[in-house]
Amino acid sequence: MHILIIGAAGMVGRKLTQKLVADGALNNRPLEALTLVDVFEPEAPAGFTGKVTCLTADLSDAGMTERLIATRPDVIYHLAAIVSGEAELDFEKGYRINLDGTRALFEAIRLAQKEDGYRPRVVFASSIAVVGAPLPFPIPDDFHTTPLTSYGTQKAMSELLLADYSRRGFFDGIGIRLPTICIRPGKPNAAASGFFSNILREPLVGQEAVLPVPESIRHWHTSPRSAVGFMLHAAGIDVDLVGPRRNLSMPGLSATVGEQIEALRRVAGDKAVNLIRREPNEMIMRMCEGWAPGFEAKRARELGFTAESSFDEIIRVHIDEELGGKL
Amino acid sequence: MHILIIGAAGMVGRKLTQKLVADGALNNRPLEALTLVDVFEPEAPAGFTGKVTCLTADLSDAGMTERLIATRPDVIYHLAAIVSGEAELDFEKGYRINLDGTRALFEAIRLAQKEDGYRPRVVFASSIAVVGAPLPFPIPDDFHTTPLTSYGTQKAMSELLLADYSRRGFFDGIGIRLPTICIRPGKPNAAASGFFSNILREPLVGQEAVLPVPESIRHWHTSPRSAVGFMLHAAGIDVDLVGPRRNLSMPGLSATVGEQIEALRRVAGDKAVNLIRREPNEMIMRMCEGWAPGFEAKRARELGFTAESSFDEIIRVHIDEELGGKL
Repeated sequence: MHILIIGAAGMVGRKLTQKLVADGALNNRPLEALTLVDVFEPEAPAGFTGKVTCLTADLSDAGMTERLIATRPDVIYHLAAIVSGEAELDFEKGYRINLDGTRALFEAIRLAQKEDGYRPRVVFASSIAVVGAPLPFPIPDDFHTTPLTSYGTQKAMSELLLADYSRRGFFDGIGIRLPTICIRPGKPNAAASGFFSNILREPLVGQEAVLPVPESIRHWHTSPRSAVGFMLHAAGIDVDLVGPRRNLSMPGLSATVGEQIEALRRVAGDKAVNLIRREPNEMIMRMCEGWAPGFEAKRARELGFTAESSFDEIIRVHIDEELGGKL
Repeated sequence: MHILIIGAAGMVGRKLTQKLVADGALNNRPLEALTLVDVFEPEAPAGFTGKVTCLTADLSDAGMTERLIATRPDVIYHLAAIVSGEAELDFEKGYRINLDGTRALFEAIRLAQKEDGYRPRVVFASSIAVVGAPLPFPIPDDFHTTPLTSYGTQKAMSELLLADYSRRGFFDGIGIRLPTICIRPGKPNAAASGFFSNILREPLVGQEAVLPVPESIRHWHTSPRSAVGFMLHAAGIDVDLVGPRRNLSMPGLSATVGEQIEALRRVAGDKAVNLIRREPNEMIMRMCEGWAPGFEAKRARELGFTAESSFDEIIRVHIDEELGGKL
């Protein structure tokens, strides 16, 4: 089994790599080779005895996707993207990487199939940004994609391509609409949605965190562990069960900020909660109103995708994976 | 007022041109110039005293869209497409014309805006092929686009681009999801859906027509006159009322083949109906099952788009426009 991970240096890419190496197999087939690609040099995973190739590359570079496909990986994870904020600021770059890069990858696979019948599994990381306000709650699986960002537009267009290339038999694609990942490990970042993680992650280690929105804000979350679980499950799922509608809204947890805070109180006590400083931010509040409050995710659940059912669980995943299992 | 029509030699393009010339104005502004473009030489309209430019061009030719935009038309109708069957047979051509051609047009407008603030109205002919079975009846406005053809995929991707370019303020776009147009004038053609028109048009002039499906098949129709009406209305509509969801499922008439036939009987008598020959075709029957039975079209109706409310009316439009007003 040879697995290619594009976007391997990102948070989900790194955790997926670690998990694959720890399991030593995917779909009950031993993992023999890993190709890790990102615009930043991906780290070779520790403890893997198979063949590892690390590449620094941009999907939109001429000839790059052909090169990635040349070794005919069995499973391709396409996790690479210019993030939402950057795609909004740099219109051309967003389309070049998020749309043209994805299409170049799919085209390289199609042309490889013409040569030798190559037909890999392709797992594509899409996003809940494919939907845009006004949104019902919960959002049903058959809700239309009317994104309000160029990033969401590029993801929605890529989903359509993935479904058409799969319908044509060029590869077996599955699109994974990831919820917001919480708790994101690492440092607080400048993303407008960063506070969802910040208000938990920082107090858990005795640091202050800023909450810019009211506690009534509802959003859609899943842990990094569940996100990796989606990726593994998507690689093994029977595509005949999925049918032509290849893009799936993943399960997650719909919670208000108040519910996040109460979970933090149960897990880490008042002392942690008291480290959350209210600092209302009008701009972030307005943005929040357009974000997805939660999905029905009926099809994905029926197809066996699973996620946490409480924020206590989501916090415990973080303590387990990032804090050595204890506070 | 300078109007550019891309796809001007097609059926809707020709009827739209005639109507614009007959009206001599659009949005209460006099029509001064018409640029007509198609892969087949468009005909200059009779009786127009303004400036007419007819071009034979392919949208995907290098530099073509820049050339079309150079004269800064006020309203651009983009009706050009490789049809469904051909886009399915020739994968690369379908994407080149229907997706890349559309994107090249949108990009040319964006770059023109950078130069001088150009911001035209763009009316894009989309299709009910953006949805795919299984379908509810009626299909609500917020139903997802899961096309089952490459053509439908290309139209759905173009819709997303149109909405994003409009949201960004590069132009004021409106996407028009056209129902199946009935009665199509001209000769019977080989399109699988051709029978919807054939079984009316041919008997109206004493010719036999073949019906390949049961009378219970339900589909979504509008007349060529209504289609032109959509195009005119879309050019004048207040885009602030439309908001960011720029792609609208047009109103139409949901009718079974049996209802079509009863309307023919009312308008043209048993003699006409007796010219319909039943010749079941398994392949066409299977295709029919995936076609849209009808849309709610709530938003479009609220925005003032109108269509026929009976098949009798649709037949009379044909008699009026194509048969000189009498049988």
